[in-house]
Amino acid sequence: MDKMYLNRFDKVIEEMKNHNLDALIISDQYSIWYLSGIWNVPYERMYVLYIDKEKNAKLFVNKLFNVPKNDFDNIWYSDSDDYIQILSQNILSKGKIGIDKTWAARFLIPLMQKKENVDFVLGSDCVDNVRSCKDEQEIRFMKESSFINDVCIQKAMHFIKNGITEKELADYIRAKFKEEGADCESFETIVSFGANAADPHHEPDDTIIKNGDCVLIDMGCKKNHYCSDMTRTFFFKSVSKEYAKIYDIVKKANEIAQSIIKPGVPLCDIDKAARDVICDEGFGEYFTHRLGHFCGQTDHEQGDVSSANKNIAKEGMIFSIEPGIYLPNKFGVRIEDLVLVTKDGCVSLNHFDKKLIIVG
Amino acid sequence: MDKMYLNRFDKVIEEMKNHNLDALIISDQYSIWYLSGIWNVPYERMYVLYIDKEKNAKLFVNKLFNVPKNDFDNIWYSDSDDYIQILSQNILSKGKIGIDKTWAARFLIPLMQKKENVDFVLGSDCVDNVRSCKDEQEIRFMKESSFINDVCIQKAMHFIKNGITEKELADYIRAKFKEEGADCESFETIVSFGANAADPHHEPDDTIIKNGDCVLIDMGCKKNHYCSDMTRTFFFKSVSKEYAKIYDIVKKANEIAQSIIKPGVPLCDIDKAARDVICDEGFGEYFTHRLGHFCGQTDHEQGDVSSANKNIAKEGMIFSIEPGIYLPNKFGVRIEDLVLVTKDGCVSLNHFDKKLIIVG
Repeated sequence: MDKMYLNRFDKVIEEMKNHNLDALIISDQYSIWYLSGIWNVPYERMYVLYIDKEKNAKLFVNKLFNVPKNDFDNIWYSDSDDYIQILSQNILSKGKIGIDKTWAARFLIPLMQKKENVDFVLGSDCVDNVRSCKDEQEIRFMKESSFINDVCIQKAMHFIKNGITEKELADYIRAKFKEEGADCESFETIVSFGANAADPHHEPDDTIIKNGDCVLIDMGCKKNHYCSDMTRTFFFKSVSKEYAKIYDIVKKANEIAQSIIKPGVPLCDIDKAARDVICDEGFGEYFTHRLGHFCGQTDHEQGDVSSANKNIAKEGMIFSIEPGIYLPNKFGVRIEDLVLVTKDGCVSLNHFDKKLIIVG
Repeated sequence: MDKMYLNRFDKVIEEMKNHNLDALIISDQYSIWYLSGIWNVPYERMYVLYIDKEKNAKLFVNKLFNVPKNDFDNIWYSDSDDYIQILSQNILSKGKIGIDKTWAARFLIPLMQKKENVDFVLGSDCVDNVRSCKDEQEIRFMKESSFINDVCIQKAMHFIKNGITEKELADYIRAKFKEEGADCESFETIVSFGANAADPHHEPDDTIIKNGDCVLIDMGCKKNHYCSDMTRTFFFKSVSKEYAKIYDIVKKANEIAQSIIKPGVPLCDIDKAARDVICDEGFGEYFTHRLGHFCGQTDHEQGDVSSANKNIAKEGMIFSIEPGIYLPNKFGVRIEDLVLVTKDGCVSLNHFDKKLIIVG
């Protein structure tokens, strides 16, 4: 096994010990790739990497899938097999088995029914804790992905003109990602004009831009399996005093949050730092979401920057810092960077300016 | 509540009685849309429609989501709430509760830990059985989506020329879907040239077409929330006798399967009818997957046409019939239609010719 994978594997085994797990069922295709380099999308079929604390590893895979030769014990099944039975026969019959957070009930419930003496608990932290701190290769890939994102938002900014619709701008961004060498979007690009931006998850539609509109763009691409994610909010032709003031509050919230990030700081404190800025200005109720989320192979990975997360920041973590203010039926502002926790602070993976920009 | 939704709802309640369920947790966003018209993509957040057998319905939804006014009892939570606790407090404390097949372990395991006197079982059949038989509106939407698919494969066929790569052809198809009014692809278009077609799930790459190659195209689009899905296999410039013979076997398997479909026929028998054709010709081991899958709001819905599925065909069901023969390192052929089970037979939703076509 490649040294990089061995290293990741050992860290997971260590976490299993910390969690007192006898075995772990890993079903997240991204976690399996992370530990092996095997990329397979199982859709609704069962696809599982089973690891016990003695480091034995079995890969359960449908014969239909084209999985490369690997170092695991491969257990193949076909569509007509009772695959839950096959899984059940090949794993521990008692003890504590960790289950991946995303594993579907269609597998878990019948397995539980066959294994009454097993204590099934959530176990994906064992992999997710390791995945949350990026290693050298991952950081390189995520910087590359964010670089493409920076380039493409620059182009998108210049493409905003009279008559353009949200959909057209989103399509343009998608095309630019491709031109710049990205594999795909890391999520569906959000483009929101004016009042549409008050919905943080607005889907681009045929709304045409108007003078004075905010232009909220939340975009990210994927390259080498790793994502970027950034939000900027421009204004078209002009900006009202009220909106400019709100923009500055959000920008300040973003910057203050980033200024306190370093190893050891609780993630909830980072959320609070940004939230305090917005609350102090009287807009607390309009900042309706957590400050950020972890990012890596998927746009949203396990872990967030929220008031509920008491875990501390560690070197190598990459998460978003994305404060926002959303005024229903009026407009919305969000300013988001991906940041990498360093030895003694953090660096933003995005370098596109955060000053208020009027476009068009 | 709209009559169409009431009708669907009543059928689900009926199924719950048949399954002796006291309540049902529906988490599949497509099922929630099916029963309410509310479309929401929750990503990793909890989003649940809870129904008890007295028809009380509660919708658990994160405040972040823009869910329209509706007739359910809406229970909102925020990112910082203990949402599992909120769910637990608002559902039965004993009895049998059905769980959606796709519900993630991250919700199910902690809920189970809070509800020791509840018998949790797989319950999504209660919705999926209803969803498997399409009603009038759904059939109309799926015909429309398949019509676009027919139009676009016609265009794709004429676009195949010297020097083209798989990726270019897939991109072209994607663009045509859009031009013809589809919302998006229903899955990532598969374009496989020559030996690449031996992998049923091959991803289009930079392979350039060669004379004598098979050109396998598996494509589908989505419109009005409903999918199409069709596969055709062409040959570029010429076809060898061996490949033409194999093509005819697959075509015959497709046609014989469709000829026996009518209400009451076990789905496994339909699989067998096609498989027998292929086995009799000595290619059984190269038909590596089930004959078909159900289709609707997603390309793969619950239910399949396989040797393991003893359920019978019912009027209104829509599933794929897609026999294939895959010769490793050589080539592959698959011919797929979506078929609708009618009162006394079936109709194909695809009308694009299945005769052997040489292109280029």
